[in-house]
Formats: sequence, structure tokens, C-alpha cells
Amino acid sequence: MKPKPTSECPAAQEITSRIESVQLRMQAQGLDYYLCHDPANIFYLTNFSNFVHERPFIVLVPASGNLTFLMPKLEEPHVRTQSVGNIELLHYFEFPAPEGEMWFDRLQDILQPNHRVGVESLCPFAVVEAIPGERVATDIVDDVRMIKSEYEIGRIAYTCELLNQGHKLLLSEARPGQMPILMHKEVSTHLMQKLLMDNPNTNVLNSKFNAACQPPQMSHDPHNFGDLFATIVEGGPHVTVVQGLANGYGAELERTFFVGHVPEAAKKPFNDMLDARALAYDLAVPGACMSEVDRRVNDLLKSRGYAENLLHRTGHSFGVTDHEAPFLAEGYQHEVQPGMVFSIEPAIYLPGTGGFRFSDTVLITETGNLKLTDAPETLEDLTLDIAQMVETEND
Amino acid sequence: MKPKPTSECPAAQEITSRIESVQLRMQAQGLDYYLCHDPANIFYLTNFSNFVHERPFIVLVPASGNLTFLMPKLEEPHVRTQSVGNIELLHYFEFPAPEGEMWFDRLQDILQPNHRVGVESLCPFAVVEAIPGERVATDIVDDVRMIKSEYEIGRIAYTCELLNQGHKLLLSEARPGQMPILMHKEVSTHLMQKLLMDNPNTNVLNSKFNAACQPPQMSHDPHNFGDLFATIVEGGPHVTVVQGLANGYGAELERTFFVGHVPEAAKKPFNDMLDARALAYDLAVPGACMSEVDRRVNDLLKSRGYAENLLHRTGHSFGVTDHEAPFLAEGYQHEVQPGMVFSIEPAIYLPGTGGFRFSDTVLITETGNLKLTDAPETLEDLTLDIAQMVETEND
Repeated sequence: MKPKPTSECPAAQEITSRIESVQLRMQAQGLDYYLCHDPANIFYLTNFSNFVHERPFIVLVPASGNLTFLMPKLEEPHVRTQSVGNIELLHYFEFPAPEGEMWFDRLQDILQPNHRVGVESLCPFAVVEAIPGERVATDIVDDVRMIKSEYEIGRIAYTCELLNQGHKLLLSEARPGQMPILMHKEVSTHLMQKLLMDNPNTNVLNSKFNAACQPPQMSHDPHNFGDLFATIVEGGPHVTVVQGLANGYGAELERTFFVGHVPEAAKKPFNDMLDARALAYDLAVPGACMSEVDRRVNDLLKSRGYAENLLHRTGHSFGVTDHEAPFLAEGYQHEVQPGMVFSIEPAIYLPGTGGFRFSDTVLITETGNLKLTDAPETLEDLTLDIAQMVETEND
Repeated sequence: MKPKPTSECPAAQEITSRIESVQLRMQAQGLDYYLCHDPANIFYLTNFSNFVHERPFIVLVPASGNLTFLMPKLEEPHVRTQSVGNIELLHYFEFPAPEGEMWFDRLQDILQPNHRVGVESLCPFAVVEAIPGERVATDIVDDVRMIKSEYEIGRIAYTCELLNQGHKLLLSEARPGQMPILMHKEVSTHLMQKLLMDNPNTNVLNSKFNAACQPPQMSHDPHNFGDLFATIVEGGPHVTVVQGLANGYGAELERTFFVGHVPEAAKKPFNDMLDARALAYDLAVPGACMSEVDRRVNDLLKSRGYAENLLHRTGHSFGVTDHEAPFLAEGYQHEVQPGMVFSIEPAIYLPGTGGFRFSDTVLITETGNLKLTDAPETLEDLTLDIAQMVETEND
């Protein structure tokens, strides 16, 4: 059964239950406080997101009771307006500030030398150094984020619905000579407008959409968006990337497509990619080891002769970001569990021929997995008809 | 004399001279290596910028000789294409990866337990922990970045020229009932197109423009962009924000304006803000103490009765970001020097009346300072004529 998409803010109960999960893990690790600096973790625990420059925002989670939120004075009204749940607010005037009035002075009003404090492994060194007591690098909030609640699955499903529309629009704009940068503008503007119409309270600072398309001369190099004037051409493989954050929840949808015809050299790698993808869907089910999923998918691709043509792991996760842990990656020894949401995107990159990749946003269910994104999947459906394009242009 | 604007990539000599300045400071601090993780510092030393997700990019600066750049394999062609100067490339396959093949394993191919290594104070804890030898928190690259070269001043001057055009366009679009979100779309799209026409090699991943305008009901709260459907109204104060990064170099331009008439309650604070601003320009000259500049500006505003209406420092700096050190801020005991580039933006925020702020991007010269941005400055020029607006609409 498909989850029900929503773009609404979380209820207080949703936030409380996240904090309780964090506190349960803190107790197991004997922590008095957990310090969050990552804006994604702060958003997860408070529903607040805004500009972050050099002025630190810090959330302190005690072993029990309410969060304390330390912020620049400038932001206090926004934290009051946006945040969900009971939060103690604490501010510093500015960064930098005179002695005794810096952000770390306020931090030390709460954290004491006898406290054992958990911190994110990516927390800035200077923030870690400002903790007076014992510091333990442990990614508790990131760990809790790995399993999505029903509400969160609804939020991700909503983002996926937008991306489905965006991808359809992107493919409908594809024609020889078209510049992907113009398609990007049209699709991303459309998605942002749709989001704002669906939910006028959207936080645009936590929303963004990308809709890219790599023509065959660069699709073998997946992060290459360097030539802005490269155009769609006859043939392929072209690779699409439609991804983003809708009011704070991320997803992605990617396809390989052709214009008019499929070059001979592209047929086998396209089908081999589909085989690897089918295997990944078979393997990414509850109880599987993430490292093993990636290893077996890579082994299949290597056995078909692509050992030198792999550039990345099988998948990453989504949630309050568009790229996060856990990972379907060799060396990552964790268990696939219901409520996780992965990209599944094994890919082949052939210099001189192009790139072969589909990516979907996929929910792990109790019994298997469920694609939340939707776009054409067969070579036939992904070979666009040029005659049709011209017709559309003359409409 | 106004600096000559440029949007070109840096020459090898420019990059070499930055690295030499870093190495000179490293030698003074007895460091064998300096580790950069901040994408802005990496861009400054290599001209490379791209997507950064959870896969670390790390630049190691040795006490003498060429940089080593550690990156995910996926990005190696982009580092090769974009980077300027002689760089040793080192890659890891993926994050996460099997034991012995993680990014930190490669790091330890170079850094040894007997090395003394400098790191940025904002470097993630996990990266600092991966350094086998002695670690010293020291912001050497940030410190070198504070004084801009002639080339960099030209780059910032170019960004300022774009913002000048954007601000003019923004004011020309202002009329009662107009939604700032539509003005944002028009201005930011215009600036991005102009940038791409001026320099087709622009790195769009390191370019962005914002053009916001806060109507009086929210302009007392400077980071409040929460109500997307709030419109321009008769009267004021409205506060504009036109800022961005053009191919990697930042600047900003902000004004307070009125539509049709100036409410009585707005006249005195507008003039008091102008007085504080004039004082800041008098004080922000070579040899001044940054803390003192802010203190004296704040003292003037406090003496006029605004002690409770100050929300931020007098200024921050620009360069390869749009918000960075050094700061014109109480407690920041550093000397203003030629080649620094500050925002000068003392401001008054009156709930019920609105916000009063101008911000310009200002170069410190040998003898004083020079505004690189340009927009109207008098109450007369900033009180827009409604009759004129209607005429424009009927054009």
C-alpha cells in the first residue's frame, strides 16, 4: 500500500517521539547531554531551519526533559515561530562578541566539567573544544533518523510526487538542440510553485529543486555539469537527475533516455544496468547486510566486464536531507530495516559511450521494498520519438 | 581609483602566491602540514568547487612544495579540469568503503605520527581525529584570505557591478501590491543570465543570487522571510537585500526605501542610521581596531536611545564566501588593513515601525575606504514616486 503523501509540519507528538528515541540511546551510552550542531539534526529535533552563517546554532538534548536551543539573538523570533515542541531558548548577542558574552560562554552555563557529552562526528572542532566535560563522538540523532516514522514516509512520498511531475515535464521538454539549463529553469520553477501552492507555509530556505540532464558526451561522468551549453542530441544515453528538498524532506528520481534511436554500443550496458538494478531490488530487503547488497551488485557488474566502469555505491538514504546515511556500500556493515528509505542506483559509466543509471527513492517495507518515485523504465518507453517532439512544438 | 572588475579564473601565479603565504605562516608555527576541509578554503587554494555531500574532499598543504588533493574517485576529472596550479591527486573509491580503503586510510599514507598538523577550527571532529600526529587548531587559510589581492578585488568588484544592476532592477519593480518573491525571481534570474553571458565558463555550483525585499511589517526582523505572500505597501520602511556569489566571489548591497511617503515615525531612525553609517565609514580605515569601530558605532546608536534595537555587528567580510571573517564586532580585537573588504551596515530595528539598514561592500584602501557597490543613498532618492510606478506599468 502506497503511503499517504503530506506536506504538513510535524505534530508535537512526532517531535516528542524523536527526542525520546534520542534520550533512550543517550541513557544506554551514559550521556548527560547530546550536542547537535548539524542544521539537519536541529531541524529534525525542532522543525527549525534558517540561514546558517558563522553564528552557531546549537541544540542541547538532556538525558531527560526539554531541549535547550542556543542561538544568535537575531534568530530568536524565528525559532519561536517555527519550532515545534517545548524548548528552552538561550541566546548570545552576536558572533564575535566581547569576553564572557560569546556563544561558548552561554554553552558553559549548561554544560559542566562533570558532564559526559555526546557530539556528532562531523561537529566542528571548535565547538567540540568548547565542551568542558568528557566528549564522546557518537551519531545518535543521525542513527535515529535512519528509520522513518509514518509521518516522515508521508513527507518523502510527497516530495516524490513532486519529482514524478518534474521528471515527466523534463522528458516532455527533451528535443535535439534543447539546452538542459533551460529545462532546469522550467522544471525547478514549476516544482517550487507547486510546493508553495500546496503549502503556503513552506520554508523556502529548506526547499530546492534540481532538474538536470546530461547529454551523452558527458553522461559517463556523473557529477559533470561543467558545459552549460551542451545540448540534447539524437541518440544517447542522456542521464536525468531530478532531485530536491520540499520543505525539508528529500528524494531523487533519475533515468537514462535516448532520442530517436538507441546506438548499438548502448544496448548491452543499458540491459546490464537493468539487471544490476533488478538484483539490488531483490537484495535490499529487511535483514540484508548493506555491504553485501553493494558487493553482490558490483560482482554482477564486474562479471559482465565493467570493473573499470563503476564510480559509486548502490545507494544512499534520504530524510531531512537529500543524501545521508545509511549507505548501500561495500564496507558498511549494517542491516537493512523497515522504515529506511534508499536510493537504488547501480550504474555503469563508459567513456566514449555514456552513462547508464536509474535512481529511485525506495521505502523498505516489512516484507520487501516499494518505489516511491515513478517514471518510465523500459528501453522502449525511454526512447523518445522525434516526430512526436516536433508535433508538440507546433501545438 | 575604482578597481577593474573581472570574472576570469585566477592565473597560476595568483594561486602560487596564496599557497606561499600559507606556507610562510605554517613555517612560523612549526607545522609540517595544514589540512583544509572547508570547501571555501579548498576553492581558494585550488579554484575547485563542486558538490560536497558526505564524501570528504581534503587538501593537504605541505610546509613546502605542491598541494595534495584527496577526493572521491568520482570527482577526479573535475578536479583535473577546474584546478589551477600543480597539485598531486589522490583518490579513494567511495564513502563508506571496505577496511583499508576509506578516505582516512589514504590520509594516513601522507600524514605520519611524527607530523605536526594545522587544522581549521571548524574542521569536523571525525576528520581531526583521523590525523595521526599532533593537531593544532589554527585558521591559517582563513587568515590569509582576509587580505585580498588585486585580482580578488577585481573579482569582488565584478560581483558588485552585477548587484548594482540587480538592485536597480529590484527598485524599478517595487509598487504597492507587488510580491517580493516575484521580484526575487526576476532579479536573480537576470543576474545569473548576465553572469553566464559575461563568462560562459562560470561554475554555476559556486554562483547564486538573492534579491529580497522586506515590507515594513517584517523589516524590524532582519532574517524574517517567512511570509512569502507579504506585499510591498505604501509607506515603509522596506529593506532590500541583494547579495550573492558570482563564480565564487561574494558581495552584498542593501537599502531602506519608502513608497509614496515616509511615515513620521520613520524619519528620525532613518537619519540616525545614516549618522551611524557615516561614523562607521570614518572609523573603518587602516590601523583602526575592529572592535572599537563597532563599539563607537553602537555607542552613537545607544546615545540616541536605540540600546534595545540593535541586532547585529557593524560588518562582516567577503571573499570566496558572502559572509566571513574578519568582523567589525565588539570583542574582535584585530586591525583594519588595506585589502580587506567589509560590509558596513549599522542598523536600527524598531518593532511596530520597521528596519533601517544600508549595507555596502567596501574595500579598505591605503588611505581610507571605497564603496564598491552603488545605489541611492538619500531619503529623497529612496522615496519612490507612486505616479511614476503607474506610468511604468502602462508603458
